[in-house]
Amino acid sequence: MCEKGYWIGFDLGGTKMLAAAYDENYSQLSREKKRTKALEGAEVVVERVLDTIRKVKSSCGREETELVGIGMAVPGTIDLETGVVLEAPNLGWENVPLRTILEEEFGCPVVLGNDVDCGVYGEYANGSARGACNVVGIFPGTGVGGGCVIDGMLLQGKRRTAMEIGHIPLYSGGPLDGAFREGTLETVASRLAISAASAQAVFRGAAPNLKKEVGTDLADIRSGILADSIRQGDKTVEKIVQHAVGYIGKAVVTLVHLFSPDRIVLGGGLVEAMPELFVEGTRRHAEKGVLKSFRGTYEIVAAELGDDAAIVGAAAWARKKAEQ
Amino acid sequence: MCEKGYWIGFDLGGTKMLAAAYDENYSQLSREKKRTKALEGAEVVVERVLDTIRKVKSSCGREETELVGIGMAVPGTIDLETGVVLEAPNLGWENVPLRTILEEEFGCPVVLGNDVDCGVYGEYANGSARGACNVVGIFPGTGVGGGCVIDGMLLQGKRRTAMEIGHIPLYSGGPLDGAFREGTLETVASRLAISAASAQAVFRGAAPNLKKEVGTDLADIRSGILADSIRQGDKTVEKIVQHAVGYIGKAVVTLVHLFSPDRIVLGGGLVEAMPELFVEGTRRHAEKGVLKSFRGTYEIVAAELGDDAAIVGAAAWARKKAEQ
Repeated sequence: MCEKGYWIGFDLGGTKMLAAAYDENYSQLSREKKRTKALEGAEVVVERVLDTIRKVKSSCGREETELVGIGMAVPGTIDLETGVVLEAPNLGWENVPLRTILEEEFGCPVVLGNDVDCGVYGEYANGSARGACNVVGIFPGTGVGGGCVIDGMLLQGKRRTAMEIGHIPLYSGGPLDGAFREGTLETVASRLAISAASAQAVFRGAAPNLKKEVGTDLADIRSGILADSIRQGDKTVEKIVQHAVGYIGKAVVTLVHLFSPDRIVLGGGLVEAMPELFVEGTRRHAEKGVLKSFRGTYEIVAAELGDDAAIVGAAAWARKKAEQ
Repeated sequence: MCEKGYWIGFDLGGTKMLAAAYDENYSQLSREKKRTKALEGAEVVVERVLDTIRKVKSSCGREETELVGIGMAVPGTIDLETGVVLEAPNLGWENVPLRTILEEEFGCPVVLGNDVDCGVYGEYANGSARGACNVVGIFPGTGVGGGCVIDGMLLQGKRRTAMEIGHIPLYSGGPLDGAFREGTLETVASRLAISAASAQAVFRGAAPNLKKEVGTDLADIRSGILADSIRQGDKTVEKIVQHAVGYIGKAVVTLVHLFSPDRIVLGGGLVEAMPELFVEGTRRHAEKGVLKSFRGTYEIVAAELGDDAAIVGAAAWARKKAEQ
């Protein structure tokens, strides 16, 4: 089955959707991108998903019957048993039976996964975590997402996806995160948290380069702009990022002690914009924090696949599930 | 193979060693207990281990050839690839090639596991986590041990055992744990930490019943004695335990967010002595702390197997590994 078939990986984001067909060597056969138009409602978005998959199918140069499976990366909570998207705030979705809809339309197995889980699985299947045994991924973005692969299997709960790294408590007290929790990784190390701290620095006059670029609106303070401001000499912004990296290191200590991974992948826009700062900094903090017997047992690397991580991973995960 | 064979599970503790033979239904065929005599050195202890296994074998009523595998629960760090016990402080061991020694002697596969990992696996195989899919175990003892089972497999790193729950950071600052770490679970929720806080309460005159029983020597303040003092009305001791339970609840929040387990097992002497306090308290704190979408997705239960958890689990894990 795996010799001749192909798989489709799909990344359903809040602003854009991206899909591609892959053969058994992860060569891309076709690719399609569309705006999501989440504001037009779930029915419209689902129709756009179906249309995107149809286009990827028809342009991949393979027979209809060779499609082995579809993997869907979804930015939300999924009921893994029923294949229902329980809640996806960026899509405005609640209780959408996505798996059933797609399986009825395309007549092949459909596998849903959390978007960051799929991204980490992509890096494991064909990116910077290729060949590793136990992989943990940390992707700081709007929040902080995570994923874990153990012996080729994505770590998922029985009914819920796992690895909600952003909401693990790491310190006492402090500001609330997006889920009204104190002391979590997300409160310090998400892009939102870093942007908010940087906007305050702009307001105080402590980040002159950033001020020239964007001012105090944190929605404008994207990863690339933070990297530029540091490159141009905004020491305060650099310290804010280094402080965040310290907490990612602290989270890595937790993850190393729990999972004993051999590879840890850092990904997402912030890491792409400042790979050295994130990877080196996390490495330093982690080595200082882990127990002696864990030192040197893991590598920390930057993700390689960028925007394609989730589609590669969704396709690879659909393939893995079909092989079982 | 599994129809006719039997397995031996072995728990190598710092003060005693315990071994038993099990058939495929986890019925115990024979059982043997010895003092470890760790102070007499690794060679003596290994000889006692061999002797104990020989006795379990000869008294189990099965043929020599029916022994399918031996599982060894070891209180220390193990190199899983080489089967070498890297460090076991309670035994005074460093770099003991236990797997090779046993395989050469008994001519069957030998599997080594961390003692708490084996205990959690025992509860999964034939105890209070039977039938669950993803299991996480927390065993507060001298330190705080943990274990995790995912789809029938013990979570282990490629080279190191995992789930060092006692050393995950949960708060900022505070006293050092046994590995010189600040803010870890062990600093609040281990039996040592609880006993130390209780000994201080005795010293301050705030725990009259405990004072009558044992005084301020924390080595004397064992789990059963703590339970008695609470039962007799030492409110300060009760508060100390409740405070520890709050931190176990906080650790459960981390574990639920990372593993999405369907069952969480609390075990060890403290939990056996005060099951209600630990299970109910942890449940309350965890439900308050987890994200809404994880509420009600897991159960928290007390371990059932007591001292037998590790031998059942070691045997079951050897069996699982042999089946692969």
